[in-house]
Amino acid sequence: MIDPKILAQFKVAPGSKVDLGDYPTDWTETDEAKELGKKTIKKRAVEILEESKERLSVAQELLYASNTHSVLIILQAIDAAGKDGTIRHVMSGVNPQGCQVFSFKKPSAEELDHNFLWRYMKALPERGRIGIFNRSYYEDVLVVRVHPEWLGPGSPAEPDKKFWEKRYEDINNFEKHLVRNGTLILKFFLHLSKEEQRERFLDRIQNPEKHWKFSADDMAEREHWKDYRKAFEAALTATSTKHAPWHVIPADRKYVSRAAIADIITTSIQGLGLRYPEVGEEQMKAIEEARRKLERPSKDEG
Amino acid sequence: MIDPKILAQFKVAPGSKVDLGDYPTDWTETDEAKELGKKTIKKRAVEILEESKERLSVAQELLYASNTHSVLIILQAIDAAGKDGTIRHVMSGVNPQGCQVFSFKKPSAEELDHNFLWRYMKALPERGRIGIFNRSYYEDVLVVRVHPEWLGPGSPAEPDKKFWEKRYEDINNFEKHLVRNGTLILKFFLHLSKEEQRERFLDRIQNPEKHWKFSADDMAEREHWKDYRKAFEAALTATSTKHAPWHVIPADRKYVSRAAIADIITTSIQGLGLRYPEVGEEQMKAIEEARRKLERPSKDEG
Repeated sequence: MIDPKILAQFKVAPGSKVDLGDYPTDWTETDEAKELGKKTIKKRAVEILEESKERLSVAQELLYASNTHSVLIILQAIDAAGKDGTIRHVMSGVNPQGCQVFSFKKPSAEELDHNFLWRYMKALPERGRIGIFNRSYYEDVLVVRVHPEWLGPGSPAEPDKKFWEKRYEDINNFEKHLVRNGTLILKFFLHLSKEEQRERFLDRIQNPEKHWKFSADDMAEREHWKDYRKAFEAALTATSTKHAPWHVIPADRKYVSRAAIADIITTSIQGLGLRYPEVGEEQMKAIEEARRKLERPSKDEG
Repeated sequence: MIDPKILAQFKVAPGSKVDLGDYPTDWTETDEAKELGKKTIKKRAVEILEESKERLSVAQELLYASNTHSVLIILQAIDAAGKDGTIRHVMSGVNPQGCQVFSFKKPSAEELDHNFLWRYMKALPERGRIGIFNRSYYEDVLVVRVHPEWLGPGSPAEPDKKFWEKRYEDINNFEKHLVRNGTLILKFFLHLSKEEQRERFLDRIQNPEKHWKFSADDMAEREHWKDYRKAFEAALTATSTKHAPWHVIPADRKYVSRAAIADIITTSIQGLGLRYPEVGEEQMKAIEEARRKLERPSKDEG
């Protein structure tokens, strides 16, 4: 496990005003990390990821069996910050029967004709399951805040501050409703530096095997770096609540972000204090009756 | 990989009349297996499962990237045959972003008010993904064939042979439609002996930690063993088609069934001959332009 004091630094205190400059993108460059040394950190991070995955596999089985809670994991980030890789590396090993991933793309005409939370509502994990939103309803206060022209019919051409404040409030109320109904919500913003994004884009460009992953749209969005940063800061400020706080995860080193996210997910599920279902009197009677039948098979049982 | 000759024995030849007595429930008891020896078989089965899982992880990434096909895996069996365990052991390790599992329970009133394929249609995997149906529309010619009283409103109280034949035809036409639209369908019937089911039920009963898994309903269904067998034989006979054949997997030994299913899934996906998406001229131009921009970052890029 990671020192909880370190993880606490990544959590956005509800009510605080977020300046992303206060959160590291490369945790190995912090004073705290320098004392430990990069090699030690990398080795420990890889170990922690493996440990967490094993703990997560056990925690998820209990989640499934107890059937009292669901877990909603939200991943938000700019392009190339490692959302897909996080899912692959943190969640592979979890029983897919208890885990579902939804990637939200541009909304369809049908989706735009509903309230903005509609399409996400339909994809929520049922009790006993972990649901991962690879992008989420937070796009509805992020990408469209940078590009209001993508808001769809019925929305103002130039939405004002109040428009976004209402959306934040809708999101907070929606999440409160989910938490009240047994959902554990874990929200991660993968915090990448502009320089590291440049290197990752270049890596895709220089490696012909990764060419199909390259998207001209991603390049275009990079031009709006400052606008996205502002939109993220506003959203994190407005929606890091006591019931569903945000975690700003340093994403320049994949081993750091994966270990941190794996640890937070696992520790949070374990913190639910779940138990295997209790077997009532009725059930015990049925079990005893079944035992009698099965232990002395009649001819018919043969 | 398992000798394809062995796997071929598990496949139901389209047009053949199925007698489940012709298919082993314990493959280690076949003459072929006895020559190899049980110890060797178990060791090889465990190795094959691990190999297949690694191959499957690679195959699934390619499936996701190429985005031309989807894979629908159908698991049917009587209780305690190992459907859940198969999913856990075969599919853990696959990126959950490309894999989704649906477990179908008793249909809701809303579902019963639609055509019987409706609820399954909605859960089909999109292109690039593996979808697993833990039970499926085959329940609509299995459990309700044993219990016609569960068919729901609008159905005849005593459905005749024609009623079931129409359902088989609907299923075959539905699957033909899916295959034509790029779905690879893999159907597995986990073939368990009545004696092995008895032992697995007793195991749940004798082990207090497994008591919550015990269901009196499962015991009740055991009484209908012969009816289920007949229903399975009729369904397998009618719906093992060239485009979507059935595999009757010996399920008395979990290591045998898991290795066989993992191998068949993996080999079938590899057989699709998938390729990474080709990069067109347009895309190459965009890549070159991006490279120029990224390699010489302007002040603004800093």
